[in-house]
Amino acid sequence: MFYQTIDILGTVAFAISGVLVAMEKRLDLFGVLIIAFVTAIGGGTLRDLLIGNTPVIWMRDLTYVTTIFITVILGIIFVNQLKYLRRSLFLFDTIGIGLYTLIGIEKGLQADLSPVMCIALGTMTASFGGVIRDMLCNEIPVIFRKEIYATACIIGGASYFLFRELPLNENYAYLAAIIVVIGLRLVAVKFGISLPNIYREERN
Amino acid sequence: MFYQTIDILGTVAFAISGVLVAMEKRLDLFGVLIIAFVTAIGGGTLRDLLIGNTPVIWMRDLTYVTTIFITVILGIIFVNQLKYLRRSLFLFDTIGIGLYTLIGIEKGLQADLSPVMCIALGTMTASFGGVIRDMLCNEIPVIFRKEIYATACIIGGASYFLFRELPLNENYAYLAAIIVVIGLRLVAVKFGISLPNIYREERN
Amino acid sequence: MFYQTIDILGTVAFAISGVLVAMEKRLDLFGVLIIAFVTAIGGGTLRDLLIGNTPVIWMRDLTYVTTIFITVILGIIFVNQLKYLRRSLFLFDTIGIGLYTLIGIEKGLQADLSPVMCIALGTMTASFGGVIRDMLCNEIPVIFRKEIYATACIIGGASYFLFRELPLNENYAYLAAIIVVIGLRLVAVKFGISLPNIYREERN
Repeated sequence: MFYQTIDILGTVAFAISGVLVAMEKRLDLFGVLIIAFVTAIGGGTLRDLLIGNTPVIWMRDLTYVTTIFITVILGIIFVNQLKYLRRSLFLFDTIGIGLYTLIGIEKGLQADLSPVMCIALGTMTASFGGVIRDMLCNEIPVIFRKEIYATACIIGGASYFLFRELPLNENYAYLAAIIVVIGLRLVAVKFGISLPNIYREERN
Repeated sequence: MFYQTIDILGTVAFAISGVLVAMEKRLDLFGVLIIAFVTAIGGGTLRDLLIGNTPVIWMRDLTYVTTIFITVILGIIFVNQLKYLRRSLFLFDTIGIGLYTLIGIEKGLQADLSPVMCIALGTMTASFGGVIRDMLCNEIPVIFRKEIYATACIIGGASYFLFRELPLNENYAYLAAIIVVIGLRLVAVKFGISLPNIYREERN
Repeated sequence: MFYQTIDILGTVAFAISGVLVAMEKRLDLFGVLIIAFVTAIGGGTLRDLLIGNTPVIWMRDLTYVTTIFITVILGIIFVNQLKYLRRSLFLFDTIGIGLYTLIGIEKGLQADLSPVMCIALGTMTASFGGVIRDMLCNEIPVIFRKEIYATACIIGGASYFLFRELPLNENYAYLAAIIVVIGLRLVAVKFGISLPNIYREERN
């Protein structure tokens, strides 16, 4: 129950971030819907394709599509109010990232992949919806340019494999890793921490 | 026979639309070929990947590749004549969309998916070739911005599930739905109907 | 052993080409890593997805990920020295293309595909990492615009099926085809040969 609530909140937050980007690009209703959709389910879809877990999850469970559809409709109606929710949205989004990371790791473990690949799958689940969103909107993906985002997923994912070695219930390892992802992102945003930009001094 | 003829005409129309866009971008011969190719088979490929139907169809049936190849060669040779065919091309394209929508729905039914997902697959089959084409050409996909296109697929797809409930031969439901897709698109283009652009009043 | 050494050199060369492009776009560390990664494994991933060969290879064999990771770290540290290696890099890259083309063909044969499709898979393996790299960096893919690149893969791939008909050991056919790909690319670059740009004389 708790798990599902968070999953839906994460989906909602990702869908809304899609709506906001699509509207800035002045797409039509269908465009907004698709962008919201790929933002929310793009990462999980890529993950499922790579491990061969098809038909992909949102084709078999209508909860995701229904949630996204309702979110988009409400998002369009209440677009002017959305900005007042910015802080809550950021929180949902961050919780969503934490959870999506661990969902991806779990799918990797089920497919007998190594820890490194599980972490990669987790990071992908959490962050590639946004990458596809930005590609469709003709932007260089924002997560390649600023903010600790994927990094939080990677470190949090790695922490899961450390926590699992401790003499604890596995559920605690799971929960602790989610908290690491969320905590890192919150701290990074609060203190304006980001990865260094690496650039070449001269074109050649 | 009729079915196959239409399928090939649809492939030809989609391939030509790819040639025209690729030429405007001044791509080289290989670029034109690839863009024509993804426009014609991109939607079906994404559909087959999502439902796990691999190797994808055009890898097993050479008709598609051969058709696209010949189309591109002829398209390049007769590029200056293509504009006089614009009206016929639009008709092929529209017929192709109608047929592709229903092909996608059929694949969804074969994979035991719900009606909503079948409609989504149909729309994807008909429209995502164009989306990938525009992404490769560094444009925001045209179907996100104007014209009733995907909407015609969605309404036509939904109509199939309504028609199926009527006491008719299933083939009539199939044909009627194709006609709905084609009719909607023709009416929309004729009367300049498009989805409303939804935009935010201010950047924030 | 020889085979694996070349495979790793190819991966290194592709990863470095990703690092160089990502740095020109001033991406952050994570962005550079991802771009290097997709450049090196994007083509093989698309191939494996299309033929349904999942989980994709780099999820099961950590050699690729490890190689790319070390390459990126070294690439970032020695970025100012990279330009002096430009000639060697071009050679690795070209060898990589030759090898990747034949790897793709082999995978196609294993999946019982027709020669045309095997050549398409080979070309895809060799060239689509660069296509995805350019899409992520918001550029029209460079291989659509200039230089004999995919063309070398296609002709080299076709030559494999010709050589195979000769009364030779199959390994020779394999090796000869690799040499054809490499030779064509070297000759094309040396003499500035490229495919003709096909463009429409007027917008309409």
